[in-house]
Amino acid sequence: MNTHDALGVAVVGAGYWGPNLVRNFAASEAWEVRSVCDLDLDRARRVAGGRSDVEVTDSLEQLLERDDVDAVAVATPARTHRDIAMQALAAGKHVLVEKPLADSVEHGREMVELAERSNLVLMADHTYCYTPAVLKIRELVESGELGEILFVDSVRINLGLIQPDVDVFWDLAPHDLSILDFILPGGLRPTGVAAQGADPLGAGRSCVGYLTLPLAGGAMAHVHVNWLSPTKIRQMVVAGSRRTLVWDDLNPQQRVSVYDRGVDLPEITTSPQDRRDATISYRLGDTWAPALPEREALGQMVTELAAAITDKRAARTDGRAGLRVLSVLEAAATSLASHGALVDAGSDLPGDPR
Amino acid sequence: MNTHDALGVAVVGAGYWGPNLVRNFAASEAWEVRSVCDLDLDRARRVAGGRSDVEVTDSLEQLLERDDVDAVAVATPARTHRDIAMQALAAGKHVLVEKPLADSVEHGREMVELAERSNLVLMADHTYCYTPAVLKIRELVESGELGEILFVDSVRINLGLIQPDVDVFWDLAPHDLSILDFILPGGLRPTGVAAQGADPLGAGRSCVGYLTLPLAGGAMAHVHVNWLSPTKIRQMVVAGSRRTLVWDDLNPQQRVSVYDRGVDLPEITTSPQDRRDATISYRLGDTWAPALPEREALGQMVTELAAAITDKRAARTDGRAGLRVLSVLEAAATSLASHGALVDAGSDLPGDPR
Amino acid sequence: MNTHDALGVAVVGAGYWGPNLVRNFAASEAWEVRSVCDLDLDRARRVAGGRSDVEVTDSLEQLLERDDVDAVAVATPARTHRDIAMQALAAGKHVLVEKPLADSVEHGREMVELAERSNLVLMADHTYCYTPAVLKIRELVESGELGEILFVDSVRINLGLIQPDVDVFWDLAPHDLSILDFILPGGLRPTGVAAQGADPLGAGRSCVGYLTLPLAGGAMAHVHVNWLSPTKIRQMVVAGSRRTLVWDDLNPQQRVSVYDRGVDLPEITTSPQDRRDATISYRLGDTWAPALPEREALGQMVTELAAAITDKRAARTDGRAGLRVLSVLEAAATSLASHGALVDAGSDLPGDPR
Amino acid sequence: MNTHDALGVAVVGAGYWGPNLVRNFAASEAWEVRSVCDLDLDRARRVAGGRSDVEVTDSLEQLLERDDVDAVAVATPARTHRDIAMQALAAGKHVLVEKPLADSVEHGREMVELAERSNLVLMADHTYCYTPAVLKIRELVESGELGEILFVDSVRINLGLIQPDVDVFWDLAPHDLSILDFILPGGLRPTGVAAQGADPLGAGRSCVGYLTLPLAGGAMAHVHVNWLSPTKIRQMVVAGSRRTLVWDDLNPQQRVSVYDRGVDLPEITTSPQDRRDATISYRLGDTWAPALPEREALGQMVTELAAAITDKRAARTDGRAGLRVLSVLEAAATSLASHGALVDAGSDLPGDPR
Repeated sequence: MNTHDALGVAVVGAGYWGPNLVRNFAASEAWEVRSVCDLDLDRARRVAGGRSDVEVTDSLEQLLERDDVDAVAVATPARTHRDIAMQALAAGKHVLVEKPLADSVEHGREMVELAERSNLVLMADHTYCYTPAVLKIRELVESGELGEILFVDSVRINLGLIQPDVDVFWDLAPHDLSILDFILPGGLRPTGVAAQGADPLGAGRSCVGYLTLPLAGGAMAHVHVNWLSPTKIRQMVVAGSRRTLVWDDLNPQQRVSVYDRGVDLPEITTSPQDRRDATISYRLGDTWAPALPEREALGQMVTELAAAITDKRAARTDGRAGLRVLSVLEAAATSLASHGALVDAGSDLPGDPR
Repeated sequence: MNTHDALGVAVVGAGYWGPNLVRNFAASEAWEVRSVCDLDLDRARRVAGGRSDVEVTDSLEQLLERDDVDAVAVATPARTHRDIAMQALAAGKHVLVEKPLADSVEHGREMVELAERSNLVLMADHTYCYTPAVLKIRELVESGELGEILFVDSVRINLGLIQPDVDVFWDLAPHDLSILDFILPGGLRPTGVAAQGADPLGAGRSCVGYLTLPLAGGAMAHVHVNWLSPTKIRQMVVAGSRRTLVWDDLNPQQRVSVYDRGVDLPEITTSPQDRRDATISYRLGDTWAPALPEREALGQMVTELAAAITDKRAARTDGRAGLRVLSVLEAAATSLASHGALVDAGSDLPGDPR
Repeated sequence: MNTHDALGVAVVGAGYWGPNLVRNFAASEAWEVRSVCDLDLDRARRVAGGRSDVEVTDSLEQLLERDDVDAVAVATPARTHRDIAMQALAAGKHVLVEKPLADSVEHGREMVELAERSNLVLMADHTYCYTPAVLKIRELVESGELGEILFVDSVRINLGLIQPDVDVFWDLAPHDLSILDFILPGGLRPTGVAAQGADPLGAGRSCVGYLTLPLAGGAMAHVHVNWLSPTKIRQMVVAGSRRTLVWDDLNPQQRVSVYDRGVDLPEITTSPQDRRDATISYRLGDTWAPALPEREALGQMVTELAAAITDKRAARTDGRAGLRVLSVLEAAATSLASHGALVDAGSDLPGDPR
Repeated sequence: MNTHDALGVAVVGAGYWGPNLVRNFAASEAWEVRSVCDLDLDRARRVAGGRSDVEVTDSLEQLLERDDVDAVAVATPARTHRDIAMQALAAGKHVLVEKPLADSVEHGREMVELAERSNLVLMADHTYCYTPAVLKIRELVESGELGEILFVDSVRINLGLIQPDVDVFWDLAPHDLSILDFILPGGLRPTGVAAQGADPLGAGRSCVGYLTLPLAGGAMAHVHVNWLSPTKIRQMVVAGSRRTLVWDDLNPQQRVSVYDRGVDLPEITTSPQDRRDATISYRLGDTWAPALPEREALGQMVTELAAAITDKRAARTDGRAGLRVLSVLEAAATSLASHGALVDAGSDLPGDPR
C-alpha cells in the first residue's frame, strides 16, 4: 500500500497500553502514527521512540486540529474516556477506546450516539476478540458447527494485583464479556445479570467474583474472575447442542478443542412435555483441535479499524459492543449491592445486527 | 479382632450402592453382615453372595427383630430414607444412610432428633469425606496450615446421565456440600444460599448449576455442577490466608497441591480503613504435594461407623452433617425458584462441635 | 450362541494372570471353562470360583485327556511355557501362552513349528494389542492415514518392583515390542538391535533400559523402559510421513491424538542428492483425537482366539509374533553384553503376512 | 556501580544471537558495549541501535586494538569460532563464545590452552545453565538433596527446522550436554558415548537422535533429540538415590518437581552379592516444587562473565566445560559412523574442579 493512502492516527495516553498501540499502528501498512499525547511529555516522547515524524504533545486540542489525523486511539484511565472521545468525535475524528468503553452506561451511550450521528467509527479495543482462538470460535458458532448455544462457562483466575480503584469484575470480566459479545449470535444480551462477590481480605472491594447471565432460550453464561487463585486458569467452555468447544488459552499445543460429544435433542416437533419425557441419548464422538495461526491480536485489531473507516461500516467490536459490555458490568454492580439479585441488563440496548 | 466382638449389620437396599456396602462391611474385621434386605429377593440374594450365614429377606420388620443386628445401613431411594431410618432407630438400631440423608430438611430433622433422644448413632454415608485426599485437606485446615479460609471453589462437571427425578444440584452437589461440611471449621454453615440453574435442553430440570454460599467473615464457597460438559473436571480450590490448596481428583500423580502463594494480610490490629489502604504484598513460595495413601474410602467409613458405636460418640459425618447438607440443598431449590435470590440456609441448625 | 457350540478351555496356572483369563473366558459366549490347573490346588479352586462344572486339578496330563477341552491357556512362569505348550500341542490342543512366548528363541521356535505342523492355533497373549487404542493405531497405519512410518518412540517408565529373576527389558519391553509387532506393516523386523542398560543401584540387572531398533528404509524404533522413575509415563509416538500419532495411555480424556503436522517430502522422483538439497517445508495442521470405545482388551483377545480356531487361521498375535518379540529380547541381551553393539535380530524369522 | 568501573565488551556477529548479547550487555551495570562487528555493516548498525557511543565496524583487527575493550563476545558460525577467539586472546582480550565452543575438539583445545597460558577468561555461552531452573537443579545436586545420581533422561523434541549443515545432535544436544556438564558433580565425563540416529526422510543427516552416556558408578545419562516430533517436549529427569527431580520446562506453573520417592539402597557396608539379594523397598513420599524467580538467563550469564574477569577465576561455564561438551559431540559422530558402538569420550579431558 502506498503510504500516501495510509490513515493517520494519534495515540492519547502513553501509560501501560499506549506503547502497544503505537507499536502496532507503526507496524501496520494501513496506518501512520502522527502524534502521541500524554500530560507527561517525557513519557510520550519515549513511547514515540526516535520517530522524528511523530508529534509529541500534551495538548489534545492541538492534535485534534491536525488534518492528517483521521483517528484517535484513547488509552487513558476509564473515567476520562468519555470526555476525550466526545472531543475527538466533535472534531470529526474516528475513535478507538481501550476497554472498558467508558465508566458508565450513560457516558458510553453519549459516545455511541454522537459517533452514529456523525457517521464516525467508534470502536472498542476488545483485543481478545482478535486472537486466532476467539476468531475461530466465532467462526464455529456462526457456521452452526456447535449448534444452538447451551451454556458458556468462563474462568479467568490467577494471583492478581488488587486494584486500588476497581473490583475484580471491572478489572477482569471485560475480557470475558467482550468475548461473549463477540461470539454469541446477536451479541451479549442476557435476560438478566446476577453477581456474587467476596472480599475475604477486607480489601474494600470484591477479589473473587461470579457472574451469572441467563440467555434467551434457557441457555446461560457464567463467569468466574478471581485475584486470589495461586494457579492461573484461562478457560472457556462453549457448549452447543451439536458440539462443545473448550478453549484453554494456557495450552499452546492445543488451545481450542471441539468435542463431538453431547446429548442428542429429541425432535423439535415434539411438545415440551414429550421433550421432558424423551429418553435422552449420548454421543461420544471424536475430538478435533483446529490449527490456529500465530498472529498478534492487536495487529488484527488495527487492521479492522482501518477497514471499518475505509469501508464506512461499523467495526467488528464497535461502540455498541462496548456499551453492551458496560451495561452488564453496571448491572453486576447493582446486583452485587442487592445480594446477588437478578437485575435487568439494559434490554433496550441494540444487539449486534450480524 | 475376635469376630465375637464384631458388630452385626443389615443392609437395606440391594441396588446400585448396596453391593459396595456389603463388600466393605464383609471385608471389615469390625463387622459381620447379618442380613441383606430388598423387595426383590433375587437381587438381595445376588448381593449377599454365596454367604450362607447371611439372611436374605424382603421384610424390614423381620431383620429389625434380630438381636445380632446392631446397625442398619440404608441404601434405598432418598424418599424412603426417613421411614426406614425411623423404624430402625425405634427398634434400637444404629443407622447409616446413603446420601442425601433424607428428601427434606423436615424428615432429616426427625431422624436426627430421634437418634439423639435414643442415644443411637445416625451417620450419613458421605463417602468422599473418607478419601485420603479429603482427610488430608481436613487435617491441613484444622492444623492451621492454610490459615483463615478465604474462598472455596468446587467444580464437578462431566457428561452425565440426566436423572429422571432430580436435578443436577440434588444429583451432584451433595458430594461438594458434604466435603465442604467436612473440611470447614464448624461445618458448612453459610450465611445464605443462592442458586442459578440452566435447562437449555428443555429437560424439565436444571442440567447446569451454580451454588453461591457466602460464609462468615466475608469468605465464600461456590459450586459448579454440570451434566453437559464434554470434559470431566473434579477440582476444588481451598484458598486460605496462609496457603492455598488445589485438589484435582483426576490427577492421580498429584491429587493435592499446597501453594505457599498468596496475599499477605496487613496486621489485624489495623482498622478496616487502614486495611483497605494498605499496600498488599504477594508471596510466591514453593508448592508441596503430600503423599497420599491408597485406601478405599468406603472401608474407612465402615470403620468410623463401628468406632462411633463402640466409643459412644457421634460419627464424623453424623446425622447433623447430613442435615446441614440437606438444608443447603433445600435452600438452593428455594433460591432457584426465586431467580437466584439469596435465601437463608437454616441458620438454626447446629454446627459441628469440633 | 448356543453353548453347545462353545469351545472348551483349560487354564493352566492360577497365579497373577490366571484369574483374569478365567474371568474373561467365563464371560465370553464363545468359551466354556472346563478346567483350572495349578500345583497348588487351593489356589486353583479359588480361581475356579464356585463353578461346580469346572474341574480343578494339579495334573496337566489329566486335563489334556479331556475331549471337551479345545484349547489350553498357559499362565505359568516363562521358563515352563515350552514344556506345557509342547505337551498340549502334542495332545491336539490349541494353545494360548502368556507373554513372553517362551524363555528363549529356540524354545519358541519349537513351539511354533509343532503348532504349524499340527495345524493348531498357537497364540501369544499380547494383551495390549487388543486395547481400543492399539487396535485404532493399527487401523490408522494400515489404512495409510499416517503415511510411511518414520520413527516410533515408546516410553514405559514408573517406580516398579525390581524383579528377582529378569531385568527391566524382559519385564516391561515385551509390551512395547508386541505393540510394535502389531502395528508395523509386516510385523517387527528390525535390521538390528542395540540395547543400553544401567544398574545404578547394583541390583545385579538393568533397572533402566533403552532399546534402539533400526527399521527398513531408514526408520527407527526406540524403547525406554525404567523401574526407577518417580513419575509414570506410558507414551508412544508413531511418526509417519503424512501424520504423526501420539498415544498417551494415562490420559483417558484423549488417549490417541493424530497430528496433521510434519515435514513434506520432496517428490520421490528426485534423486537422493536433490532430496537432500530440497527445501523442506512444514505443515501445521489440525489435531484429531478419535473416539475410542470402552472395552476390556482381554475380552477381545479371547474372542480372537475362538475366531482363529473356528476359521482355521492364524490368530492376530500368533506364535510367530511371539517369536519375533522373543528374538528382539534375546538380541537385546546379546547387545547389552557387548556394550550396546548393534546385533542381528533374527532376520531369518518370518514376518507377518498381512 | 560507577560506570567508570564497568568492563568494555565488543560483540562480533550481528546475526541471530548477537542482538540478544548486545541487549543484555547494554542492560548490565557491569558492562559497556564498545563495538559491534559484522561483515554486514548495516546489520551491525541495526544491532548497535541508536547508541552513538558504540562503534560499528567490519574489522576485527580494529576493535581488538581498542584499549577500552576488555572482552570479546563471539556470536558467529561455529566454524569461525577458533580463529576469532585465538586472535582476541592473542590481543589480551577475555572471550565469550556462543555454543558450541568450536567445530572440533582440536580447535577447542587450542583455545582453552591459549586462554589458560594467557590468564584470560574463556567462557562458553551455555545459556540454559543460567536459567533459574538449572541453577536450582545444580544447587540441589550439590547440596546432596538428591543423593547419588542414578540416571538422567533428557528429552528435547519438537517440529524443528532441518538444518542445512548440522545434524540434530549438533543442533540440539549441546543444550542437554551443557546442562549435564553443569549439574553433574565434576562435570560431564561419561565413560563412553553411543549414538543412534535416524534419517527417515533421506535428508542426508540424522533428524532423530539418541545419545547414551554411561557415567561412573553404573549411572547413565540419555538424551533424545528430535526434529520430527509434532509435540514439543523439554523434559529432564534427574534421578538420585535419595530423591528424583523432574524438570518440565514447558510447565511454567511447576517447572521443577522434586519427588521424595524411590528405592531404598541397602547399607553400603553390604557386599555386592548381598546388595543384589537384599529386599529393595520403596518410599512414596511427598512432592515438592521450589519457587523459581523470573530472571533472564542471559542477564545472569553476562554478570558471571564480569565476575569471573574481576575475581580472576574461571567462569562457571568455562572453556573446559565447552570442551567437554564438544568431546561428547565428536564422540557421538564417531559412534554414529560405527552403528552406535560405544566410543571413548576424551577421558583425558580435565573435569570441573568444583
